[in-house]
Amino acid sequence: MNLASGMLFASDSRTNAGVDHVSTFRKMQFFQQPDERLLVMLSAGNLATTQSVVSLLRQRANASSGKGERNILNVPSMYDAACLVGDTLREIVERDGPTLSQSKIEVGCSFLLGGQIRGEAPRLFNIYPQGNFIEATPDTPYFQIGEAKYGKPIIDRVVNYHTPVEDAAKCALISFDSTMKSNLSVGLPIDMLVYDKDDFGPGIHQRITEQDPYFQQLHTGWGQALREAFAALPPMRWKE
Amino acid sequence: MNLASGMLFASDSRTNAGVDHVSTFRKMQFFQQPDERLLVMLSAGNLATTQSVVSLLRQRANASSGKGERNILNVPSMYDAACLVGDTLREIVERDGPTLSQSKIEVGCSFLLGGQIRGEAPRLFNIYPQGNFIEATPDTPYFQIGEAKYGKPIIDRVVNYHTPVEDAAKCALISFDSTMKSNLSVGLPIDMLVYDKDDFGPGIHQRITEQDPYFQQLHTGWGQALREAFAALPPMRWKE
Repeated sequence: MNLASGMLFASDSRTNAGVDHVSTFRKMQFFQQPDERLLVMLSAGNLATTQSVVSLLRQRANASSGKGERNILNVPSMYDAACLVGDTLREIVERDGPTLSQSKIEVGCSFLLGGQIRGEAPRLFNIYPQGNFIEATPDTPYFQIGEAKYGKPIIDRVVNYHTPVEDAAKCALISFDSTMKSNLSVGLPIDMLVYDKDDFGPGIHQRITEQDPYFQQLHTGWGQALREAFAALPPMRWKE
Repeated sequence: MNLASGMLFASDSRTNAGVDHVSTFRKMQFFQQPDERLLVMLSAGNLATTQSVVSLLRQRANASSGKGERNILNVPSMYDAACLVGDTLREIVERDGPTLSQSKIEVGCSFLLGGQIRGEAPRLFNIYPQGNFIEATPDTPYFQIGEAKYGKPIIDRVVNYHTPVEDAAKCALISFDSTMKSNLSVGLPIDMLVYDKDDFGPGIHQRITEQDPYFQQLHTGWGQALREAFAALPPMRWKE
């Protein structure tokens, strides 16, 4: 979410290759140059592909350090960073796609890339499996990737560009909680990061586990509030 | 939903072939023999396919009337009715599938088939695009087809086998309302039908339009209750 009050990133950490192969991997990656840029990348889709994209971005940033080649730590704008991620994704899809499609395995993945590079405002991009991308605006200040539908209605109801980031974080956690109630492919822990405009620091990262008292409070409180709100509305009466 | 308190069916009526070709079609069909059976069929997916399946089921029930051939109005059990629907679906997919797949158009569709045939309890089936099917049980007393994810969390939270059917209807409408807020492919009017066990009548059918005062009350009341419930929970505090 790219809001007037700040940027908020949240990702779960459940991965699966079939229901008998469920694991935990962080889906939030950081690329930082202190006092100059913070880029946050969230991923969904084929884990091998997302990891390869991240590894290549890091490896090339290290290798080209000082040599001036275009990399994630020196591109001059968030737009150029999104292009670079899209290009790297296309490279992996081209490399791994043919053999995967022989086994009817989906090579594709999606990324959310957000953050700020000095000289620009904070920006947020949704990078498609084909490597092209769209950018968030005040009209539509948030993106979701992956198992997005279960948790979308609550965000659509309460979040807009002027929502305080503390409330946006609450909403993101409720959205994840609703999703986890209906779908096993999303699971704790949740990584959250909040970034203040023009801070250029690492942001505040927090990992939310099952034992997190705030998450427990939301989980219990929201479920109870929904049931109470539901009970308070009148039941359907049929016109005979 | 096949509940202890009765059966409840609900379907929207939005169809689309791309965003520039949006129409209204009822997705709820009835097959009835007074005092002997009521079958209710809900559909999702390719409209030409679902309509063909329904037309063939009706045409063959009329044509074979009195001749003893197996049809939707004389099969002895709901299980056999689900087999017949599955077979008819396979027939259409075999007929229309090859030309549609040349144009990369999806021929598939899904059905929910529920109701009661004298001699049996009410039963509910979820018929897959391949023509096979599963049956609801008290553990999982409801099915959704089509654009199901947005509206699933609220059903998962409040509906179980022992929920009164008036509350289940309220929940179904809230579920549709949440879906319509996040997805344009679902739209009013909503057809609802409630059927009481061992009634063998036509059930009570109600069509809910935008002007329906009860739906308006739910729409406004639920949105407001959610915002209040959200505001009552504490905002996130970051541990620095």
